[in-house]
Amino acid sequence: MTEDLLTIGSRTFRSRLLLGTGKYRNFEEMQQSLEASGTEVVTVALRRLDLSRPGQPTLLDYLDTERYTILPNTAGCKTAEEAIQIAHLAAAMGLPRWVKLEVIPDPDYLLPDPVATLEATRQLVKEGFEVLPYINADPVLARHLQDVGAVTVMPLGSPIGSGQGLLNLPQIQIIIEQARVPVIVDAGIGAPSDAALAMELGAAACLINTAVAQAGNPVLMARAMKLAIEAGRAAFLAGRIPRRPQAVASSPLTGLVGSPS
Amino acid sequence: MTEDLLTIGSRTFRSRLLLGTGKYRNFEEMQQSLEASGTEVVTVALRRLDLSRPGQPTLLDYLDTERYTILPNTAGCKTAEEAIQIAHLAAAMGLPRWVKLEVIPDPDYLLPDPVATLEATRQLVKEGFEVLPYINADPVLARHLQDVGAVTVMPLGSPIGSGQGLLNLPQIQIIIEQARVPVIVDAGIGAPSDAALAMELGAAACLINTAVAQAGNPVLMARAMKLAIEAGRAAFLAGRIPRRPQAVASSPLTGLVGSPS
Amino acid sequence: MTEDLLTIGSRTFRSRLLLGTGKYRNFEEMQQSLEASGTEVVTVALRRLDLSRPGQPTLLDYLDTERYTILPNTAGCKTAEEAIQIAHLAAAMGLPRWVKLEVIPDPDYLLPDPVATLEATRQLVKEGFEVLPYINADPVLARHLQDVGAVTVMPLGSPIGSGQGLLNLPQIQIIIEQARVPVIVDAGIGAPSDAALAMELGAAACLINTAVAQAGNPVLMARAMKLAIEAGRAAFLAGRIPRRPQAVASSPLTGLVGSPS
Amino acid sequence: MTEDLLTIGSRTFRSRLLLGTGKYRNFEEMQQSLEASGTEVVTVALRRLDLSRPGQPTLLDYLDTERYTILPNTAGCKTAEEAIQIAHLAAAMGLPRWVKLEVIPDPDYLLPDPVATLEATRQLVKEGFEVLPYINADPVLARHLQDVGAVTVMPLGSPIGSGQGLLNLPQIQIIIEQARVPVIVDAGIGAPSDAALAMELGAAACLINTAVAQAGNPVLMARAMKLAIEAGRAAFLAGRIPRRPQAVASSPLTGLVGSPS
Repeated sequence: MTEDLLTIGSRTFRSRLLLGTGKYRNFEEMQQSLEASGTEVVTVALRRLDLSRPGQPTLLDYLDTERYTILPNTAGCKTAEEAIQIAHLAAAMGLPRWVKLEVIPDPDYLLPDPVATLEATRQLVKEGFEVLPYINADPVLARHLQDVGAVTVMPLGSPIGSGQGLLNLPQIQIIIEQARVPVIVDAGIGAPSDAALAMELGAAACLINTAVAQAGNPVLMARAMKLAIEAGRAAFLAGRIPRRPQAVASSPLTGLVGSPS
Repeated sequence: MTEDLLTIGSRTFRSRLLLGTGKYRNFEEMQQSLEASGTEVVTVALRRLDLSRPGQPTLLDYLDTERYTILPNTAGCKTAEEAIQIAHLAAAMGLPRWVKLEVIPDPDYLLPDPVATLEATRQLVKEGFEVLPYINADPVLARHLQDVGAVTVMPLGSPIGSGQGLLNLPQIQIIIEQARVPVIVDAGIGAPSDAALAMELGAAACLINTAVAQAGNPVLMARAMKLAIEAGRAAFLAGRIPRRPQAVASSPLTGLVGSPS
Repeated sequence: MTEDLLTIGSRTFRSRLLLGTGKYRNFEEMQQSLEASGTEVVTVALRRLDLSRPGQPTLLDYLDTERYTILPNTAGCKTAEEAIQIAHLAAAMGLPRWVKLEVIPDPDYLLPDPVATLEATRQLVKEGFEVLPYINADPVLARHLQDVGAVTVMPLGSPIGSGQGLLNLPQIQIIIEQARVPVIVDAGIGAPSDAALAMELGAAACLINTAVAQAGNPVLMARAMKLAIEAGRAAFLAGRIPRRPQAVASSPLTGLVGSPS
Repeated sequence: MTEDLLTIGSRTFRSRLLLGTGKYRNFEEMQQSLEASGTEVVTVALRRLDLSRPGQPTLLDYLDTERYTILPNTAGCKTAEEAIQIAHLAAAMGLPRWVKLEVIPDPDYLLPDPVATLEATRQLVKEGFEVLPYINADPVLARHLQDVGAVTVMPLGSPIGSGQGLLNLPQIQIIIEQARVPVIVDAGIGAPSDAALAMELGAAACLINTAVAQAGNPVLMARAMKLAIEAGRAAFLAGRIPRRPQAVASSPLTGLVGSPS
């Protein structure tokens, strides 16, 4: 079998698990979790970095950039303008010229703004960024974003940090069916079963943060997520059995190998 | 970490995936699937064996009994008497003295008979068998079975071969919470996400047949199931995040490592 | 249209809503709720009655037996013997010779005992009682109960008082499909939508208690349940549209009345 | 109790059920269904009207405008421009100056365009229309629409005509919680239980078409929907019991009225 690779814009990866870097109890636990997960892409909230004290180590200093590709994100931005500014900052810092675009005006549920996200995507694509927009599971919006050049769409399974799994499942299925770019499920994954399900449906990858960082044992959960992503991908490639309303015997007495003639 | 072993009655295993042997397209695909799954226990429907032609190879000849422990099952039995008889036959054939007990009077949905299952369990335990009864997800029945000496209970996720996943989830959770023996989810698992979910809830193992045997690519699906079982078990041990009704930012701007002081 | 009547054993009713009498804040609220619900059958826990002080009014004195048929229930019984004894007590008190049979050994989840319920049903039917057994949603058990003469089966939607709705939906559907007696969904109904759903699937009636008695406004909720039961029943008779995976325009531009030729 | 009225913009209604006029088998069945439903608002797809043959009766001639307020809709429009044009046409025809705004570029799933819908709403509000936009269940979009003056938001439960019920439930709940206008659930309602559920959650009304028009017996289903809407509204006002993970006895033996002292 030829290798099953994930291509996002101009970059190619073996791992289909993207990991966030927020909410870990400490940097060491984060580092070990990243390692256990097998991830190749870690996303960093630029606004979380304390850039005001030159010479002081930041989160970035704890990330092995030989090993992980940094994906800057615009968490904490409420408008298209703010998000664009953060993307510019990331580029100025020498980070890779791609961005996970989050425009989130709602402090309660952290749901993204469809209009501002589209606007910021259009602008950043024009400036040469590879844009990975975080969106509600809206298939029409997903198509608009692809039309203006997004290299992926990242529908949310359920609100950030809620761990509720894939509440928007049927609409994520429509997005995947209609997509011309890889679809990455982002937010809401609470357990390996959620990640496996997303992959079984044909998602190209998952981005996970809270479910690992806040697990009782983040390093072990990171490994669990790695296995689940691989399991879901393999099942997608293998082709699952259909759901049937009625039972079908798995030990039938006739008509199969080993049955009486 | 000490090794995480599964103990069913007097037997101990590393793998938490039990596999069925029905419905494969051919024996070779079955053998490769068993190998890819990492299973150590394979269940065989005694009634499927063609024992009428001595000298002719049967399913059992295709199973490496050095590698796999055979778990005879009573598929195809409609009454306690028939099931007991099959258990006797298995013992007479020299198979291990344990039995997956299925008493299924309903040809449409293949649902087990709670009363006959309890009766046959009581009898077979008295005769020294280790009994693994297949049941509806009925917590009170599960306790009765433990009271008469069943070494596990095997609640169904959904009807055999339906691939509908864990429809009886809340009652399976109650069974697990109240159990004094390992709980093995049997029937209904259609995809790795289902298996992972069962393990995340605290199931000790899963028994899978149709979802592997009838997958587009059974060998690849067997591997997917292996990974999913490991993922779900690791997540159970790691401790998942709670489900929250409201979103919680995974990239908060204050109060965590790396945030401005 | 001929009248759509509910027949349970030898009794016939117009209303398809049976109501419990426990957990009301006071008798007046109970009476008003019964009235608002339009119910004709109210169930009474014999063990709740304080029969130790002759001359003192009990719950029964607050029920208009001209208007409502009392259905004695065996709540609080943990064994078949206890339940049979309570049925005898009810008959001795001159209550109608039918009984809602609850045998519940589990104090935590209030789930019924399948074996003891079958045993008590068999015995009480022999003695001439009309028996309405409360059961887990187990289709095979439901058939056994019908075989020994139960006049209905009453599968639980979810555990008593949990208000979780119809968690056992697929198995309730199987019970309904295979039933030769009316199926009454009992326990777990938390809101009118749950009751409507049960009726849409073909349940003959619903038995509700906590969802009315403990609502903010029990009288208004009783009326809501009445309407929902009627709605669900009408929908069952009318024939609902199929669930479709794909959208179908409800305002198509061609091919229907009013469209351009 | 003061009357419980629904106010949409400048109009007030008693019924909380809005009905569509598409997909009926004939006009008579439509008329009888409208009557059985108790609706006061019926929506008409302007593009469905055959206006090319003056003097010929159209759908509008079959609607009693003394009894029903016509709500023109823009079904069949793929762009903001087309939708605005249809609104203008409706006004020119003397229809009420409000519009159910549908901008649907996707012929497969009939999902609305968030950006074009916002744009058309802004424009039509400026021109003095009362606008009722049909949207994906996107809380941020819902707020944008309210900010530009929409008199309601109409999130879809599931794609038009799919009858899948409230797949987007959690996000509809967020929209209701944050709304400053009445929220009307539109599309996807397949049965009375779906409609009751929407109302229980606090939806102000439901708009239903296919589930009535294509039912086996549309007139009876129209009545079922009327009852379900009333049931769900009453339950919302009455206050439902909480969902509990654990069972709570509804026939407790101590501590309530009628219990032994």
